[in-house]
Amino acid sequence: MPQTPAEIQAVQYRDGTIVLLDQTQLPGVETYVDCTDVDAIVDAVVRLVVRGAPALGAVGGYGVAVAMTQSDREGWSSERLQAEVTRIRDARPTAVNLAWGVDRVSPHMARGIAAVVAEADAIAREDVAANRALAELGADWIMSRIEHRPLRLLTHCNTGALATTGWGTALGIIRTLAGRGVVELVYADETRPLLQGARLTAWELQREGIPYVVQADGAASSTILRGLVDCALIGADRIARNGDTANKIGSVGVALACHAAGIPFVVAAPSSTVDLATLSGDDIQIELRDGREVTTLAGVLTTPPQAQGFNPAFDVTPARYISAIVSEHAVVEPDGSSSVAALTGASS
Amino acid sequence: MPQTPAEIQAVQYRDGTIVLLDQTQLPGVETYVDCTDVDAIVDAVVRLVVRGAPALGAVGGYGVAVAMTQSDREGWSSERLQAEVTRIRDARPTAVNLAWGVDRVSPHMARGIAAVVAEADAIAREDVAANRALAELGADWIMSRIEHRPLRLLTHCNTGALATTGWGTALGIIRTLAGRGVVELVYADETRPLLQGARLTAWELQREGIPYVVQADGAASSTILRGLVDCALIGADRIARNGDTANKIGSVGVALACHAAGIPFVVAAPSSTVDLATLSGDDIQIELRDGREVTTLAGVLTTPPQAQGFNPAFDVTPARYISAIVSEHAVVEPDGSSSVAALTGASS
Repeated sequence: MPQTPAEIQAVQYRDGTIVLLDQTQLPGVETYVDCTDVDAIVDAVVRLVVRGAPALGAVGGYGVAVAMTQSDREGWSSERLQAEVTRIRDARPTAVNLAWGVDRVSPHMARGIAAVVAEADAIAREDVAANRALAELGADWIMSRIEHRPLRLLTHCNTGALATTGWGTALGIIRTLAGRGVVELVYADETRPLLQGARLTAWELQREGIPYVVQADGAASSTILRGLVDCALIGADRIARNGDTANKIGSVGVALACHAAGIPFVVAAPSSTVDLATLSGDDIQIELRDGREVTTLAGVLTTPPQAQGFNPAFDVTPARYISAIVSEHAVVEPDGSSSVAALTGASS
Repeated sequence: MPQTPAEIQAVQYRDGTIVLLDQTQLPGVETYVDCTDVDAIVDAVVRLVVRGAPALGAVGGYGVAVAMTQSDREGWSSERLQAEVTRIRDARPTAVNLAWGVDRVSPHMARGIAAVVAEADAIAREDVAANRALAELGADWIMSRIEHRPLRLLTHCNTGALATTGWGTALGIIRTLAGRGVVELVYADETRPLLQGARLTAWELQREGIPYVVQADGAASSTILRGLVDCALIGADRIARNGDTANKIGSVGVALACHAAGIPFVVAAPSSTVDLATLSGDDIQIELRDGREVTTLAGVLTTPPQAQGFNPAFDVTPARYISAIVSEHAVVEPDGSSSVAALTGASS
């Protein structure tokens, strides 16, 4: 009888140390990185040892506890501590959750490390609960809107347990649908340049026993236009007040194809990803990463040595191309009457 | 003073042998493969030692001469010779030019190898002339339609001298525009899985001294939507009677983004790529290549070992998303009154 595999733990905290499953080494090697100081946390965040907006929320929270532990050990001034916390907060600009996690635990700093850890634990616990809840809401919405059975789904980047503190967002919905026995096949975009789809989503789907294929990102549009897909699902790094959504580079191309094909394009994220202070996608800062991530693949140079890579890490999908945004509180259809604020649990 | 580099020779014929610049080894190594028999030709075509629809037209023509030389050497029956010629003709299904090249020289077989070679030489010579002519027509059309100077262009896959018998199609237009001094920057999609953009287009642009950056295929849509591009240009492997165009996987996604952004999307191909016998894109056979091209690069596995790759090599862009199709004879706007037949030089 097949065993259900133990849930993946991308982010854990133990005694002043954040323990991260090293996602740069997957799927080949399953190894962990101990972050015992701020340098190690920032390095892990920048190198994408840990990534995924919800997971970064937990790293932000636990990161403050690590900084406080280091401060005690090294005798920092309060100004130095604050500067180091800000360094964690700003390690990556696009995902709102990292700053959100830092900001949420910061008021507890005065009560000591244990209080900060307790709040970060709450972030992690609530994230898993939010993902479980949004996965049910999203699965219900998809099953109510799409008649084709079993479902053929497409996803971009990785939004599973590795990107969160458990279960996943878009991939969480796919897992929930698979648990209901209605998934035929998942098309996983490989997600260049860093191959989070080929490496991480494939690894999670393989582990869960959900049927999948990996395709080049350029194949997504035609796979959708050829009628091979019933619904595409992505996560989010920041959702603006008007519903414009920043997510991994390549997402908006999937949205355009779904729009052209007339199939649903679903964004799934916990409410911590909603940023009502950002009015539209025009106000979202897009992280421009090192061009060498593009000019190399799996460590091999793919271009002439003089070539420059252009490497925006995210893109913005305008709300008009999004069929539904799912949080743990609500499903919002940007074209409909409900407002994005409903995603945060505010009464609309 | 900078020297103009010698024109690239992707396909040459010498005394019963096709000499191919090995495009699987670029940009790292510039080496040539001698094809002295049909097996070697089919292998080179399937492995993409030579690729690009117009280049394949020349390979089809010269391939018949190689088969005849092998037939003389090995004493084949005429049935065997015909079967071997058919094997060359069918080595790849999507590009019409390979079969077109074989069919064009076949009537000359009765007059001997020299006659076949003369006709194949004519194919190659005419292809260069067609590319030069369509590059001027395409450059004129773009300069008449776009006010922004200098131009920021985007291209997908490789359509330069490497993909043709000289100058290039979409990249030929870019070279012509660069020669007119109006190109600011070319965004070259890397073109997974086989990286013809990162490897080959970058190599040609570098060689020509045309400013460029390489980007992940997933970045193309947002680069276009952000207003960073004035015009996108692609080649074609087969153009149906209604203007639907088969080209490298990822092309239709670029077209959708141009359509959404309101910028021109231009297809460039010699008339040998127009297939009036194919009524629409629905009738174009799409080559499905080995999934391992997606799950590996240079022998490095990028997925879990059990993962299956889904690897359609081409997609079809519906004519309604194409602003202009350029051949050596005409510029056809599929939305306009001129017919695709005008691309072949037929009076419309």
